[in-house]
Amino acid sequence: MSERKLILYISMSLDGFIATKDDDISWLSIVEHTGENYGYTKFTETVDTYIIGRKTYEVVLKLTNGKFPQAERFKCYVLSRQKRKDENGITFYNGKVEDLIQKIKKEKGKNIYCDGGGQIVKLLMEKNLIDEYIISIMPIVLGDGKRLFLGGTERFTLQAKAAEVYKSGLIQLRYTREEMSGLVDDLTQPE
Amino acid sequence: MSERKLILYISMSLDGFIATKDDDISWLSIVEHTGENYGYTKFTETVDTYIIGRKTYEVVLKLTNGKFPQAERFKCYVLSRQKRKDENGITFYNGKVEDLIQKIKKEKGKNIYCDGGGQIVKLLMEKNLIDEYIISIMPIVLGDGKRLFLGGTERFTLQAKAAEVYKSGLIQLRYTREEMSGLVDDLTQPE
Repeated sequence: MSERKLILYISMSLDGFIATKDDDISWLSIVEHTGENYGYTKFTETVDTYIIGRKTYEVVLKLTNGKFPQAERFKCYVLSRQKRKDENGITFYNGKVEDLIQKIKKEKGKNIYCDGGGQIVKLLMEKNLIDEYIISIMPIVLGDGKRLFLGGTERFTLQAKAAEVYKSGLIQLRYTREEMSGLVDDLTQPE
Repeated sequence: MSERKLILYISMSLDGFIATKDDDISWLSIVEHTGENYGYTKFTETVDTYIIGRKTYEVVLKLTNGKFPQAERFKCYVLSRQKRKDENGITFYNGKVEDLIQKIKKEKGKNIYCDGGGQIVKLLMEKNLIDEYIISIMPIVLGDGKRLFLGGTERFTLQAKAAEVYKSGLIQLRYTREEMSGLVDDLTQPE
């Protein structure tokens, strides 16, 4: 059986923002079309565990009137700096993220879905824990907001797997961890 | 005859950087392969005019030992806040960028190639002057550096035209100005 993978599945504007400064994500609706969910259904069938940062969790909670919809489908972890009592079917976790991922991967199950935001992505990239990146680029320049990639991490290379242009203008990119990851100088590129 | 278009043709890392903080762009070489220039030759055949920001111009000059190679092929403009005497076959321009683009577009010729950096891109986006975006996403997370999209601009939508995945991992995205550009709420998406 192949190892469970940690997959970042997220949308950003062409200029790299996942939300406005005041956490508005209503602009994502520009690609909303009946019958098109950009592979999300298929993707969610491959995962059973969900991790999200505490701030992003609270943004979602506000939008969903205090109910956390993902908890009905997945085992959910919220990464938080503070210790916090579980709520809404969610487990709060304030330990080392690499220990959590290792623990989940040791258990049997499907893949792990990471939904952001920027701080948890930075943390996971720093520990080289993301196995796949599925990034949907929205056909919009937001101009300002909260960035997916906060900066301040180490350099690493990726393997590009696919890019799909949808009618709505959404372009979905897929990358996997570069097996020969490390410094660019060390990289021998397969042809 | 169709109007001359202003085309941003640029590379960035997946995390949105066009150079390191100290202007290193040697990491771009991870996609260098004999016989593959990602459509650059074809693209340059469609342009005869080149504009670049003053800071980026100086970065290029340092790399090319004081000679500016683009000046041999194109009519080159460097946008600068200061008045400056022309050099290396380059015209320095410190007026309003919209006046420059209007002037060039009134003259007969091919398309206009914009090569960055972040500040000129921001200026051109603010004035809604970019007709096409050809953005090559390098298969690398740089972690830090100078961003292509600096933020602080207005929101606008784009039309996604194409995405091509190359063997090296470079993914080239193409967008055009959204003809119904403006607020997202005004957007009626063609199906």
